[in-house]
Amino acid sequence: MEQRYSSELFERAVDEFSKLPGVGRKSALRLVLHLLRLDVGAVDGFANAVSQLRHEVNYCRVCHNISDDEVCQICASPSRDRTLICVVENIRDVMAVEATNQYHGLYHVLGGVISPLDGIGPADLEIQSLVERVAHGGVAEVILALSSTMEGDTTNFYISRKLSQYEGTKLSVLARGLSVNDELQYTDEVTLGRSIVNRVEFRS
Amino acid sequence: MEQRYSSELFERAVDEFSKLPGVGRKSALRLVLHLLRLDVGAVDGFANAVSQLRHEVNYCRVCHNISDDEVCQICASPSRDRTLICVVENIRDVMAVEATNQYHGLYHVLGGVISPLDGIGPADLEIQSLVERVAHGGVAEVILALSSTMEGDTTNFYISRKLSQYEGTKLSVLARGLSVNDELQYTDEVTLGRSIVNRVEFRS
Repeated sequence: MEQRYSSELFERAVDEFSKLPGVGRKSALRLVLHLLRLDVGAVDGFANAVSQLRHEVNYCRVCHNISDDEVCQICASPSRDRTLICVVENIRDVMAVEATNQYHGLYHVLGGVISPLDGIGPADLEIQSLVERVAHGGVAEVILALSSTMEGDTTNFYISRKLSQYEGTKLSVLARGLSVNDELQYTDEVTLGRSIVNRVEFRS
Repeated sequence: MEQRYSSELFERAVDEFSKLPGVGRKSALRLVLHLLRLDVGAVDGFANAVSQLRHEVNYCRVCHNISDDEVCQICASPSRDRTLICVVENIRDVMAVEATNQYHGLYHVLGGVISPLDGIGPADLEIQSLVERVAHGGVAEVILALSSTMEGDTTNFYISRKLSQYEGTKLSVLARGLSVNDELQYTDEVTLGRSIVNRVEFRS
């Protein structure tokens, strides 16, 4: 293919930005021209933040949320209610629930939901480690905060069976303020917050 | 300020993306979550492209366009018409003119236009080096391809005075297919291409 710009470095930077989701060729060009005008320190700050993020970020060994340390700030916090575990699909959902300011317990990030069509089974998710947390004791309630999709419902059902032997631990799901097929991460904060407050006992 | 995410590295990456023009907090979050899911090689490729761009890119010593070498590919190309120089404000305008496929001469990137309000005078721009290129001889025509703004017109006028002594070199401006106050970089390719073909002799 013919080169479009007079510099291969420039071409490559535009290509890299174009690969990002939602960034077209024209936006990529605009962003690269912006970076060219910044001073070296600012550009290095940007590049280092991206590189370090991928190389150095950890996942909490308790809840699997992103963390700078072995255990994340939420799991390590003395002010969180340690008898509550909110089960979510991914780290974005942790952020969504945190943004409601309605929840002060701990989390458990599954890393996905059971989806046979995508080849994702229970063993691909952090379900066993959730069972171990509950088995370890001291968990009064597990809140299943998965998206109200078929895959989310399937995962809720699977987890409820796995946890059914622990009678001291209540299981609940988010109140169905969410309509069917809503993705958790796109739900507005008020609706999501209300659905946490109005959570109901899980019946499988 | 309270930290919004459970990882400072994550927070910093979102902050850095938020600084880019046209990228809001939500878009930055989406981009960072995307980068977290990529493999290490892909993220390093992105970060290196950004870092190298700023550290290693050169500006052509003849026309001041971006270049990987001392002289850019356009100035070095044997297939370009070396008797034509198209004067533009910035590297983005070189790209805009190249995209029309109507021009096969060389360029001269001023690095801006004369703008007393912004404190930009002739000495801040690559005008002297343009005069030297013309004085060196062999330039049949200088095409002034600046935006049709007051600053562009002022710069056209200044350059025409500087080049008036070189009678072997014709001066032309883009045909006024552009309406007043149009920025060159936002003009569609057909209009811009036509205005190059229909360029007219400059009269000050």
